[in-house]
Amino acid sequence: MIKSIATLISNLNKTNIISQAKYTTSVLPQFSSEKYAVKRKKFGVLKSADVEYFKSVLSEDRVLTDESDVLPFNIDWIKNCRGQSKIVLKPKTTDEVSQILSYCNKNRLAVCPQGGNTGLVGGSVPVFDEIVINLVHMNKIISLDDISGALVCEAGCILENLDNYVRDHNLIMPLDLGAKGSCHIGGNISTNAGGLRLLRYGNLHGSVLGIEAVKADGTVVDCLRTLKKDNTGYHLKHLFIGSEGTLGVVTKVAIHCPALPKAVSLGFFGVENFENLLKLYKSAKSSLGEILSAFEMADNKSISLTVENCKLSNPIGDYPFYVLIETHGSDETHDNEKLNRFLSQEMESGLILDGTVTSEPAKIKNIWHIRESIAGAGMINGYVFKYDVSLPLRNYYDLVLTLRTRVGDRARVYGYGHVGDGNIHINVSASKYSKELYAILEPFIYEEVAKVGGSISAEHGVGFRKPQFIHYSKDKTALQLMRDLKQSMDPNGILNPYKVLPDLPDIEKD
Amino acid sequence: MIKSIATLISNLNKTNIISQAKYTTSVLPQFSSEKYAVKRKKFGVLKSADVEYFKSVLSEDRVLTDESDVLPFNIDWIKNCRGQSKIVLKPKTTDEVSQILSYCNKNRLAVCPQGGNTGLVGGSVPVFDEIVINLVHMNKIISLDDISGALVCEAGCILENLDNYVRDHNLIMPLDLGAKGSCHIGGNISTNAGGLRLLRYGNLHGSVLGIEAVKADGTVVDCLRTLKKDNTGYHLKHLFIGSEGTLGVVTKVAIHCPALPKAVSLGFFGVENFENLLKLYKSAKSSLGEILSAFEMADNKSISLTVENCKLSNPIGDYPFYVLIETHGSDETHDNEKLNRFLSQEMESGLILDGTVTSEPAKIKNIWHIRESIAGAGMINGYVFKYDVSLPLRNYYDLVLTLRTRVGDRARVYGYGHVGDGNIHINVSASKYSKELYAILEPFIYEEVAKVGGSISAEHGVGFRKPQFIHYSKDKTALQLMRDLKQSMDPNGILNPYKVLPDLPDIEKD
Repeated sequence: MIKSIATLISNLNKTNIISQAKYTTSVLPQFSSEKYAVKRKKFGVLKSADVEYFKSVLSEDRVLTDESDVLPFNIDWIKNCRGQSKIVLKPKTTDEVSQILSYCNKNRLAVCPQGGNTGLVGGSVPVFDEIVINLVHMNKIISLDDISGALVCEAGCILENLDNYVRDHNLIMPLDLGAKGSCHIGGNISTNAGGLRLLRYGNLHGSVLGIEAVKADGTVVDCLRTLKKDNTGYHLKHLFIGSEGTLGVVTKVAIHCPALPKAVSLGFFGVENFENLLKLYKSAKSSLGEILSAFEMADNKSISLTVENCKLSNPIGDYPFYVLIETHGSDETHDNEKLNRFLSQEMESGLILDGTVTSEPAKIKNIWHIRESIAGAGMINGYVFKYDVSLPLRNYYDLVLTLRTRVGDRARVYGYGHVGDGNIHINVSASKYSKELYAILEPFIYEEVAKVGGSISAEHGVGFRKPQFIHYSKDKTALQLMRDLKQSMDPNGILNPYKVLPDLPDIEKD
Repeated sequence: MIKSIATLISNLNKTNIISQAKYTTSVLPQFSSEKYAVKRKKFGVLKSADVEYFKSVLSEDRVLTDESDVLPFNIDWIKNCRGQSKIVLKPKTTDEVSQILSYCNKNRLAVCPQGGNTGLVGGSVPVFDEIVINLVHMNKIISLDDISGALVCEAGCILENLDNYVRDHNLIMPLDLGAKGSCHIGGNISTNAGGLRLLRYGNLHGSVLGIEAVKADGTVVDCLRTLKKDNTGYHLKHLFIGSEGTLGVVTKVAIHCPALPKAVSLGFFGVENFENLLKLYKSAKSSLGEILSAFEMADNKSISLTVENCKLSNPIGDYPFYVLIETHGSDETHDNEKLNRFLSQEMESGLILDGTVTSEPAKIKNIWHIRESIAGAGMINGYVFKYDVSLPLRNYYDLVLTLRTRVGDRARVYGYGHVGDGNIHINVSASKYSKELYAILEPFIYEEVAKVGGSISAEHGVGFRKPQFIHYSKDKTALQLMRDLKQSMDPNGILNPYKVLPDLPDIEKD
């Protein structure tokens, strides 16, 4: 039994991030409620009549109740959180989502909306017995206007599938991230996913044109417009971008896709120290200007652990820091001229110690694969504590060094991320989860981030894991306004409970 | 008396759009409440004790009650709307705004937040006796991080002043519009202003980093972060972007400023017909790619009326359509190569009949000045009915032709706008306001826009003039959610009443 369950989890976890990783997990994670000592709120408990109702709305095969069928939907992919849901619903239409929510709201049944389940803060799995509403079957592309770039699709579409589809029409998706092979566009929007191209194409608040979402009471809110400019009243779509399924379930999406770049180049460089890395960033911004589409960094430990665990090969030598620079442009000759000028200038200045520049798609893919594999690579050693913070650039790497001293030989601490957005991912990789290490890391990390005015969650969100720490980055008045919105839009609190919003005592203790 | 009042209005109206216009207005506009038959809602009436309180919070010189002092703040710059406020308050600090609102909320006194008063839908002037809160004295720049590009300032800063300031630090403001010499950044954000560079630098939902706003009850909501990525809870700042002062008064702003382009070029071209203009747009997107920063159009009537009324000179001959293309890039040689290649290709193809290309700042300024003067030029003939709509590109110019037939010789109908955003401004210029013409135009225009799925307000907002038409572009469920938010955040409805939200019967008749 354990073996088949492990296989199920492993299948669920086959995102392209970790597709090369060999899973040997045979032990299930502890229940989140026990691990983090959470009390169940007073929601209704699922009865057989409820199951019958759901079967009447959906076809029987889209209502999962068998324990082994439900299990993978209860566990997040970093195996940190585990819920106890008894049922997974897989609606195919907005109307089905509406009927489910209307029923749950009337019967005070809590729900957990779920996309590709690639979230990193436990937001996409239940905590107790919340009903999982998984949008995997809402995966239709509705329309694409290849002149304006407006794509309309259902929330359960996988990001990579969308990207492949729009590429055939000379467009690209405005976002890209390691989990693209599994994550859903609805989940991307619900978590305001950032990713690898934000530097160039901006954030989702800028590129989402319209949203259809279902409120807790089943009301379908139709803001699914495809216009670039529409100033008729409140900009409601933003309520659903980044609210992690606590204000509504996103069912359809209209998003602006930029033009497919005619020329793409990539540079992978070795750098002596972080000070030089920052200088290189400033120089790249100036020299590459409008064609700079990514400026990513990784420290030596990130790369060495990744190439070792994922059996990859590092195309350049061993350096203290690595920088990945990508350009998207409309003229290959101009772009190469800019990139080569930058490269020779910074090789001469010494900011770049060594590196490789390529325009070959296969080589580009290989180098991106190393960068994208960092997120999953540490998990092969056992357990990874994952942090995702925004910091002022002058403080960007300090926290990694501070943590190495603090953690000692208990774990490996490494940092990588999106320099252009001030966003660093700090991973602490250990052989297994331990409460001692947890207590060493948290809330220390959040305190350090707050000291320099950073954000304790740059792009991963708050989810289940961070509500008690949100006050480090969110003002009391803002928290109260969040609470007012939740009260107004989901008065029974059935949508993704135990997530995002802290319980009142946590606010008061701030 | 009339003369001095006219001078006051004229002074207030001296935006750079119409600075060359000679005003001879000596008749005041009709009261909005009479012109549009609006009933006053049950708010408190200003008493002398209230005035005394405001004087105790602000210094006496920042409380205007003299009729002639107050008058300019009651009239919008297109002289369409006129309120009857008895008092203008000019706070200097967020705390003062908070005290004012807290007092007004307790005493059910309605308020009208006001920036540079350059709005085009009557949103920035009172309808009845709302207390005007003008933010002109909140004009301090707080900080600028010239590496990240984060500018923090008070809401009353004038857009052009900010642009000049950040240019000294090799940055530009992400938005630009004709009223830049008068409009406030707080007003830009409250109306989600679009403008001339949106094609390149995106909308304000993408570029605003943080906001401080004061709610109706005086609560200061502090979301004034400067981080590019911050996913800690609901993205509250978006509630204040584009809600036109009905959910809160924006007091401080953090905004991301892009790098000052090293090379700027501009082309001004004559085009045979709209079909060719659209082809030219597609070609420009492909040839100029990432350096295209504006693609503006104007029809023959727009340009001929503007050069005549504003005594400007058209640098090229007489053509059915004009196109203004601007590039922002980091390498002058590359940019000119792209632009010249595009120009010679499209001269040869015949899409461009004639034109001029320049990189000289003075010439660039002159050509932009023609484009920016169109908005105010028609007013010199008397009165302009102004429409600002988003339309699918294939329908972009049809409405101008339809209206010309419908209006006949009663007025001049012309169209100009931001092709890249699907946003056209349609002006109907007459010798004076007439109810007959009004009835010919509205709701006909909105019906036509709704037929093709456009927006009845692309960038100007809803304000006082369009709530009764909002249902042409906004779904019932979205309107209900707007109402719920208003109820939650401003239960007494004191913030900018009679604006944005339609009265209930208007929803029901939809």
